[in-house]
Amino acid sequence: MKRHAAIAATIASLAFVTGAGAETLMGFDTEASDQQRALEIEFSKSLSASDQLAWMRKLSARPHHVGSAHGKLNAEYIASLFREWGYAVEMEVYDILLPVPKLRKLAMIAPEAFTASLTERTLEEDPSTAVRESLLPPYNAFSVDGKVEGDLVFVNYGVPEDYELLARYGIDVAGKIVIAKYGGSWRGIKPKVAAEHGAIGCLIYSDPADDGYARGDVYPDGAFKHETGVQRGAVMDLPLRAGDVLTPFEGADKRARRLDLEEVETLTRIPVLPISWADALPLLRAMGGPVTPQGWRGALPITYHLGPGPARVRLEVRFDWQRVPAYDVIATLEGALYPDQWIVRGNHHDAWNHGAADPISGLVALLSEAKAIALLARRGERPSRTLVFAAWDAEEPGLIGSTEWAEDHRKVLDTRAVAYINTDGNSRGFISARGSHTLEKFVNEVLRDVTDPQTGESVAKRRKARMLAGPDEDQRKDAKEREDLHLAPLGSGSDYTPFLQHLGIASTNIGFGGEGPGGSYHTLYDTFDHYTRFRDPGLAYGVALADVTGRITLRLANAPVVPFEFKAFAESMSKYVEELKKLSQEMREETERQNRMIEDGTYALALDPTKPPGPPEPKSRVPHFNFAPLDNAVGELERSADAYDEARSRAESMDAQTLEKFNRLLYTSERLLTREEGLPGRPWYRHYIYAPGFYTGYGVKTIPGVREAIEEREYGEVEGQIEIAAEVLERFAGRIDEIVSLIPPETEPPETEE
Amino acid sequence: MKRHAAIAATIASLAFVTGAGAETLMGFDTEASDQQRALEIEFSKSLSASDQLAWMRKLSARPHHVGSAHGKLNAEYIASLFREWGYAVEMEVYDILLPVPKLRKLAMIAPEAFTASLTERTLEEDPSTAVRESLLPPYNAFSVDGKVEGDLVFVNYGVPEDYELLARYGIDVAGKIVIAKYGGSWRGIKPKVAAEHGAIGCLIYSDPADDGYARGDVYPDGAFKHETGVQRGAVMDLPLRAGDVLTPFEGADKRARRLDLEEVETLTRIPVLPISWADALPLLRAMGGPVTPQGWRGALPITYHLGPGPARVRLEVRFDWQRVPAYDVIATLEGALYPDQWIVRGNHHDAWNHGAADPISGLVALLSEAKAIALLARRGERPSRTLVFAAWDAEEPGLIGSTEWAEDHRKVLDTRAVAYINTDGNSRGFISARGSHTLEKFVNEVLRDVTDPQTGESVAKRRKARMLAGPDEDQRKDAKEREDLHLAPLGSGSDYTPFLQHLGIASTNIGFGGEGPGGSYHTLYDTFDHYTRFRDPGLAYGVALADVTGRITLRLANAPVVPFEFKAFAESMSKYVEELKKLSQEMREETERQNRMIEDGTYALALDPTKPPGPPEPKSRVPHFNFAPLDNAVGELERSADAYDEARSRAESMDAQTLEKFNRLLYTSERLLTREEGLPGRPWYRHYIYAPGFYTGYGVKTIPGVREAIEEREYGEVEGQIEIAAEVLERFAGRIDEIVSLIPPETEPPETEE
Repeated sequence: MKRHAAIAATIASLAFVTGAGAETLMGFDTEASDQQRALEIEFSKSLSASDQLAWMRKLSARPHHVGSAHGKLNAEYIASLFREWGYAVEMEVYDILLPVPKLRKLAMIAPEAFTASLTERTLEEDPSTAVRESLLPPYNAFSVDGKVEGDLVFVNYGVPEDYELLARYGIDVAGKIVIAKYGGSWRGIKPKVAAEHGAIGCLIYSDPADDGYARGDVYPDGAFKHETGVQRGAVMDLPLRAGDVLTPFEGADKRARRLDLEEVETLTRIPVLPISWADALPLLRAMGGPVTPQGWRGALPITYHLGPGPARVRLEVRFDWQRVPAYDVIATLEGALYPDQWIVRGNHHDAWNHGAADPISGLVALLSEAKAIALLARRGERPSRTLVFAAWDAEEPGLIGSTEWAEDHRKVLDTRAVAYINTDGNSRGFISARGSHTLEKFVNEVLRDVTDPQTGESVAKRRKARMLAGPDEDQRKDAKEREDLHLAPLGSGSDYTPFLQHLGIASTNIGFGGEGPGGSYHTLYDTFDHYTRFRDPGLAYGVALADVTGRITLRLANAPVVPFEFKAFAESMSKYVEELKKLSQEMREETERQNRMIEDGTYALALDPTKPPGPPEPKSRVPHFNFAPLDNAVGELERSADAYDEARSRAESMDAQTLEKFNRLLYTSERLLTREEGLPGRPWYRHYIYAPGFYTGYGVKTIPGVREAIEEREYGEVEGQIEIAAEVLERFAGRIDEIVSLIPPETEPPETEE
Repeated sequence: MKRHAAIAATIASLAFVTGAGAETLMGFDTEASDQQRALEIEFSKSLSASDQLAWMRKLSARPHHVGSAHGKLNAEYIASLFREWGYAVEMEVYDILLPVPKLRKLAMIAPEAFTASLTERTLEEDPSTAVRESLLPPYNAFSVDGKVEGDLVFVNYGVPEDYELLARYGIDVAGKIVIAKYGGSWRGIKPKVAAEHGAIGCLIYSDPADDGYARGDVYPDGAFKHETGVQRGAVMDLPLRAGDVLTPFEGADKRARRLDLEEVETLTRIPVLPISWADALPLLRAMGGPVTPQGWRGALPITYHLGPGPARVRLEVRFDWQRVPAYDVIATLEGALYPDQWIVRGNHHDAWNHGAADPISGLVALLSEAKAIALLARRGERPSRTLVFAAWDAEEPGLIGSTEWAEDHRKVLDTRAVAYINTDGNSRGFISARGSHTLEKFVNEVLRDVTDPQTGESVAKRRKARMLAGPDEDQRKDAKEREDLHLAPLGSGSDYTPFLQHLGIASTNIGFGGEGPGGSYHTLYDTFDHYTRFRDPGLAYGVALADVTGRITLRLANAPVVPFEFKAFAESMSKYVEELKKLSQEMREETERQNRMIEDGTYALALDPTKPPGPPEPKSRVPHFNFAPLDNAVGELERSADAYDEARSRAESMDAQTLEKFNRLLYTSERLLTREEGLPGRPWYRHYIYAPGFYTGYGVKTIPGVREAIEEREYGEVEGQIEIAAEVLERFAGRIDEIVSLIPPETEPPETEE
């Protein structure tokens, strides 16, 4: 109560500043800063590792995928915690499609017989691995049903470049079954690209080079994947859209209009099955054909061959295309001053298995935050804005719980959502903060205030040290010359996607990592024992994560002026535009160089005439593009951002009503980066600055309309996309100008000191 | 006879030019060029793949190391061929030390028992592998006797940087037995560096990542090393000196003064044994300690650990330190015009085993050349200069046959040797020509005249295509912008070393490669079948090699003006000096950067506090050096080289006597790049421009006195070495000036056109 009065007084006295100087926090004046800092210290103190350990032990005791009995029990337990702490809790239930395996068969029929076990071994050393009630066997969700037989072709990671190189080896996958390594792209890209090339089936296995014995000791001796571990996961066409496949653009409630399964565009076109390396080894060993390029081989003790055949396999998968309830736990703490301005903080609760790391390690941080904030609220320190804590269901099969909720509540989110703060699995080591550049300066401020549990320095400083000591020249330069860390742009892979890329809500995704690697991801071995032995013993980084995201949440909730900022945004846009120019220039030069070498016979001379690969196919010349519209837009953006930066210290003379309008214009600015019609060919993705790559899956493409047109050599599209992107940025710059116009002009000229 | 008359007439008429223009060959006038070209066409025509196949089959039928019955029979057979063709043949016999194994034992005694087999398997598919008479078992020649027991430490390739990184893991090899992978350096470096760090024994094994299943199918399915293959080889301290270890600086004839074995500095200090990966795997699998850095691991299906232990081994090796006769076959064809000017062309004949690739594939090319030249001589086309064809014995244990001969004949070689042309094992693919930069322009001229058997283009053009299509930016630039290929500088590893680096005779080493890889090197599997199936089927590249080196030999022998040239030399010296500056600057910056990060705690923050590696140790600051003396010397060199280039077209007006002096000054110019006292700490190596690296073995160090002082942080030595190197280059420039002064000045001033 005291606190709210103070804030109100501050606004009344029009004395706050918006983040200049080391002593005041962005969006707070000096006094409010001090109070907020004191509040955050209280908040940090009440974060408890033992709470987190207890919750993790309970929530990861059993497999708990969406639709399972334990998934529901976990949701109810989470809801009960929130209720206990004083939150208003809604269990929002969506009715979603979740195919689960009825039949999985994989056998080699030539040159010798072998039947894949398709099972993960129980380990005596980790009793959780014997707890298999509700456990879905290894499969890829949203693979179509199918029974196919064909010769195997090894396709490396199965991304488009891999098929280009296969063509140089004279290998066509049409009518064949491909075997791809996990990694190098999001898994759903592999069957998508394979099907585009005519393959009839797709196996995906985890090569020990990537997360097995080649990386470190395997579980239970170490953290890495042992021979029977299989990564499960969704393979729907996520870069086309996320969420329940039957109800695009619409919350999957009982009344929703549903597609027939035949109408769904996001299922794979061919059957897919993930396997362990123990099951893959006999197949790979039996393959013939050319030896793979050196860069393609994994760490199995064989010579890798491309095929096709003589290894020939039969693959059959059948699914129960069931509808299951997804339980989103939505816990709200109404804001004391601005109840219609929402800070949304989420982490999913469903797991493919026990899920200690993914997602429970992030979820327990969220619970810690919620508990600590509730404690403050009970002491009279209720946040100014409304907090919405969300524990999503059904993230694993395709960001479904969050997407359905975001679609369902689109209208209210559009006006009320200030920002979305996401976490997912956590680990030990270095902070990773990605997200909207409008939040970059603000998030950095928080990262400088949170202490790394192992070194006692700030998490920002530790990340900078990592960059300085690392081999990447650009990172070193950034760490040396730039005070703030870049927020890396967001692609996809967790629940921020519907908020950021569908609704245009400024978002950030936070986690620690780099010192807790391993191969447990989506396997039976993602257990409490594994996590607490190898990833984050004692959950010290669970507490650090709660400290970072809790402070972000609290500061966003309490800042009188929403702490968005545009100079970092403008700087990043300028960088991305330069990247696009460089990309097209490099593609142009490389295309010309290659075409010349094909034409003048250099390749014919340089390559071994007795064996593949042969020369590449000539490629279409890359024309020069007019980037001027983007350059102009970035120029406008920079001027607008500078004007805001110059003006924001004068926001002091705004009245409360103007401030509310001002804040709303600020936080809805990110909406202007979306277009209602969405990106070309994928209308669900509306953000014109950040999107998951159509052929990378999770990997981000910035200014995606332009970038993907260049990369995919759709030259005719490029300039149209440049103009659209420029319009988007200009509209955004216009919004900044509108915001600036609300700030009263200087009343007295500043005195010049001599 | 006709030919000689023509040449004599040419000299008399003083009408020759020295290589300007595309039509005349370097050192020939137009008419002589035409004759030489016609001669070379005759030469090429009589090269015969079926000859080479027959000789290879015979010479590689059995193991034939130095001192073996079959080694002697091969030498006698080679001598008989030369005699048959009309050469004057001397069998020069040296009495050299060759330790051969009496006892080899390797057993793991903890944590479990394992006895290494130390044998290579006979393969049904290759009957040669059953022919084991005279076969020395896998061993490293010039390892000391010893019996040691200790915990194993994995040291990657066992080069100095590896020990720096081990120190950061807190691992000390003192009192331990190291296990190193073959590769990354010459093998003799591994026990040398291990002993410097206090290790008591050294195992070296071939990891399948480097030449086994990870590279391609293994023998007999493919060319690569299978699990029992072991690379033999010498481990004497070759970078200290080459040749018979008992008779440094002196031909090892019966009367030579011999060191006691105890006095020999070039034996290893610890026992060494090479093993197969089949024998290494149980040891590596039993090791504990930290997981190796990612870059260190090989391709075995295990997690590699650094140790020390718990794998503990007992290693015992005992040798018969026997003296054996080495048979150098020296076949001479006296020059028709300049019998006292010698072109020496060599390849060794001894092998660790059957040696089809190493050395017979190169030796049969040499025999082809000798036969074809003899045929021409019988037709009256005897070369102007004397040809000395040498088939060396005892190259494998340490370049012994060639070194003893070079030491023995030092005086006569000093005045007579024009150049030394070396080959060793050959393969299929792209020409590789290394050697003295004074020969660069000349060798390139030949490479443009020889046709690649697979493509019909010149071998020079094919190499350029390879460079253009490859990933290396510098190579692409060179291939595009530079007419000539660089002759890469020579380190060590074959018989050119005594000629080039001990005696200062301009040398070149030639071979094809890049399309015939494999893992047969120094194993039982280097057989006729292996070579003709995988390396050079039909010996098409054996003929191409003979064509290249035969033309080099013939052209050098017949050119009225010895075709040395200095602009390429000056250009390379300038490049090397710039490299030295860059090296010291980069070391300076990197040292400062690292020291700063150690001091300011960046490393402490950037590294995982719970496990190694820790931060590196601070290093001594790198001072700035005065490179001006070298810059000045290079400047002089450039001016002198330009002057020679400008003047050489006027050499026409020299009389025959001046020409002889002129030629002698030309070809002995390389001697001036040596100094009698040799390089610091290794007086046998006298060349101040090219030396094998003291810590790389075969790998070259250019301007080694300076470069190694910088690399080894002997800062106090650097400027002294700069001055010495500058003096050497100035003396060399002075010789060029002396040569130029013999060329008559222009008699008429050139007319100025306007």
